[in-house]
Amino acid sequence: MYGERVARWERAVEWPLMIAAILFLLAYAVKIIYQPTGAVDAASEVVLWATWALFALDYIVRLTITEQRWRWFYRHLLDLAIVVLPMLRPLRLMRFLTVLALLNRGAGNRLRGKVTIYTIGGTIVLILMAGLAVLDAERGGPGPIEDIGDAVWWAFVTITTVGYGDYVPVTDIGRIVAVALMIGGIALIGVVTATVASWIVERVADEEHKKAAATEDQVERLRDEIAELKSMIRELKPAA
Amino acid sequence: MYGERVARWERAVEWPLMIAAILFLLAYAVKIIYQPTGAVDAASEVVLWATWALFALDYIVRLTITEQRWRWFYRHLLDLAIVVLPMLRPLRLMRFLTVLALLNRGAGNRLRGKVTIYTIGGTIVLILMAGLAVLDAERGGPGPIEDIGDAVWWAFVTITTVGYGDYVPVTDIGRIVAVALMIGGIALIGVVTATVASWIVERVADEEHKKAAATEDQVERLRDEIAELKSMIRELKPAA
Amino acid sequence: MYGERVARWERAVEWPLMIAAILFLLAYAVKIIYQPTGAVDAASEVVLWATWALFALDYIVRLTITEQRWRWFYRHLLDLAIVVLPMLRPLRLMRFLTVLALLNRGAGNRLRGKVTIYTIGGTIVLILMAGLAVLDAERGGPGPIEDIGDAVWWAFVTITTVGYGDYVPVTDIGRIVAVALMIGGIALIGVVTATVASWIVERVADEEHKKAAATEDQVERLRDEIAELKSMIRELKPAA
Amino acid sequence: MYGERVARWERAVEWPLMIAAILFLLAYAVKIIYQPTGAVDAASEVVLWATWALFALDYIVRLTITEQRWRWFYRHLLDLAIVVLPMLRPLRLMRFLTVLALLNRGAGNRLRGKVTIYTIGGTIVLILMAGLAVLDAERGGPGPIEDIGDAVWWAFVTITTVGYGDYVPVTDIGRIVAVALMIGGIALIGVVTATVASWIVERVADEEHKKAAATEDQVERLRDEIAELKSMIRELKPAA
Repeated sequence: MYGERVARWERAVEWPLMIAAILFLLAYAVKIIYQPTGAVDAASEVVLWATWALFALDYIVRLTITEQRWRWFYRHLLDLAIVVLPMLRPLRLMRFLTVLALLNRGAGNRLRGKVTIYTIGGTIVLILMAGLAVLDAERGGPGPIEDIGDAVWWAFVTITTVGYGDYVPVTDIGRIVAVALMIGGIALIGVVTATVASWIVERVADEEHKKAAATEDQVERLRDEIAELKSMIRELKPAA
Repeated sequence: MYGERVARWERAVEWPLMIAAILFLLAYAVKIIYQPTGAVDAASEVVLWATWALFALDYIVRLTITEQRWRWFYRHLLDLAIVVLPMLRPLRLMRFLTVLALLNRGAGNRLRGKVTIYTIGGTIVLILMAGLAVLDAERGGPGPIEDIGDAVWWAFVTITTVGYGDYVPVTDIGRIVAVALMIGGIALIGVVTATVASWIVERVADEEHKKAAATEDQVERLRDEIAELKSMIRELKPAA
Repeated sequence: MYGERVARWERAVEWPLMIAAILFLLAYAVKIIYQPTGAVDAASEVVLWATWALFALDYIVRLTITEQRWRWFYRHLLDLAIVVLPMLRPLRLMRFLTVLALLNRGAGNRLRGKVTIYTIGGTIVLILMAGLAVLDAERGGPGPIEDIGDAVWWAFVTITTVGYGDYVPVTDIGRIVAVALMIGGIALIGVVTATVASWIVERVADEEHKKAAATEDQVERLRDEIAELKSMIRELKPAA
Repeated sequence: MYGERVARWERAVEWPLMIAAILFLLAYAVKIIYQPTGAVDAASEVVLWATWALFALDYIVRLTITEQRWRWFYRHLLDLAIVVLPMLRPLRLMRFLTVLALLNRGAGNRLRGKVTIYTIGGTIVLILMAGLAVLDAERGGPGPIEDIGDAVWWAFVTITTVGYGDYVPVTDIGRIVAVALMIGGIALIGVVTATVASWIVERVADEEHKKAAATEDQVERLRDEIAELKSMIRELKPAA
């Protein structure tokens, strides 16, 4: 929609950005889980800033080479947010998951295949990121979440809306992360259900309507035949 | 349906009522969170009563100028409830959220856009109101909910059906508010899922049926052609 | 399907059975909540047995007057269960809720109206019955559920899948009741979501397809016209 | 798709494998619940290994007699997993539940009937297996789950996403089992909702569209008639 140059650029940077996103996640995880000092800490910081710079650069390039700049800007506010809010950056990982979509062949399954991949990928990244963020916020505080195992376990319990209550965040940032996870959980239930429902509705329809509905094409061809009929009768007339 | 005069009135009072609803919410929040005395308390009371009077007036005017009074009355029992039960009044906010619907263009998205806006707006207002109401009921009692932060956190945990159990209402009014929130949560899951399902079903259908179904219009045009054919043959007959 | 006599009988006993079901619920509630002795206890017992006898009689009459007895028997195994398992009997209440369906007019809304009424009615009866049953099982035991308020509150928390964990059954019977409620909760979410989804899908379809699909009727009428055409040409032939 | 020989083999071993799966479940349950020693333990081990050998044999035979070996291999990776990961083996039980599908007659209900049976059967087996696995992991540890009753109760509370928090696993294996159950719970809600939605959407459509859409067949027959018309006129022409 925004010119072929953007599409070509996006294809070119797909893999570099995916690797950058994974490096970002790893550096973030190292920083939070091991709380390193000295060289390791400095290296993590370098990776975090370098990957951020890459995503910012990608945003600026795309904004520059697109044909309809303002329209692109308004339709890619989330991309801007991803550059501005470093915490959201790993969501970028999602875009590259589409390569897995190659496994999903067949017309009707295409959209559902994509939705399934985005949902699984998005849920995993959301759980990992929320686990890291809540560990960062809660560790050393009055709450029970003190290591990464507890944090990821808490994230699973929350996103599935089970909510045992054995681990609960007590800090403000921890609670904000929890609310994001809960909203993710509601969305997760929604998407899973909707995908299954779409599949069932379609399969039931296939079972029942062996007799397909008449198509516009068919009726058009019928009309051509009648037009031919008319011209045949027109020829007949002077002869009579 | 109930005459153009009502529609014109509703458009005219849209913004004044929206502002009144926000003032009501703020005054209610101030009263409950800060438990003011003296001048601030009196001011809150004035705002609460003035906004209530505005909504009551709006109801009476609409009932007066409508053409089919009884039918309007039966179809707007919720509006009556909103005037009679002051606590429900902020639900009015919802109607004005439709202005945001301008952002949602395109035929099929219109209904879903509206549903999305009402759902998000309604959920936020429900969480805020339930938080305030439960704080009012539980503060100073044997339960753990003692400040607005805890109350809103509890409302999020409840409406998403996570239910950690770290904060639980123990008074009768608190429990009634909780039941309303739980029902809201079930409805929330239902609406989110249904909206996503509708979107997926439609997109899958678009992918598959490039060949559109024959329409009534097409067949009607076919019939016209055949009628023409007939008259041509009728002309032919006497000539023979 | 099973003869008009059964339909007439069912219409005739609709209200008496509804009243019997309400009396049964009341007597059951009195017995469990107040644990009466002496005359009140005896009266409750009489009501419980009398209403049970009524339902058993209704079952026998319907089985006797139906035309296809075995088929009716197999298709009404739930009715047999309701007579044999006295605890399920209040489910009967559900059938009479259809009278409320009169409020729901319009073609497409008819099924959804019925589903809505059955869902709301069934949920309320399920919550009340589960509350009474769990109170009966847990009172005086090691668990925290000791009065009807706690029991109904627990039932709401369970059926909405919130599950705070402030009240949890600890006896075997209490846990079986809880599992029934949880299954009811999953079904409740399913039915609410499905009803909303059906409504949204239909409304979106209405918005989009102003142009209706060609019907079988239309095409049949087209065929009649062509048949007429043929006979006109056949007349033409000998004349030439 | 993979040749008739495989289909015949699968029909032949259906019942033997179903019995083997039940024996496996029983031996597994005996081993975990009663923690037997001596002869009983040895017998359980023999049953576990013998049933495993049967499933491995079935896999090898099917892989050998299929026509398109590689394609079959890729499409049956789950079967390989079931043979390699003994814990998943009871999922095999699911395939045999299709015999119950005989009870579900009628076109549109066929798929939904199958989905319902697989869902109920899969949920029961999942709850039992998860209960046994969590009991095996948690018993004797710091967590509260100490007998099979608690474990199955916990499994129900988890799969329905209620999550009271009265019993929570604390070991790593216990938590992995819990996460599998939670994912099963999300899937359960999705499938229940989707099945109900499919049923409601279909029933509402039945209520509304008494007038069926024109079919391809109908239009084809119309075309034949017009072709006949043409040949009649062609005959007419030389006569004129």
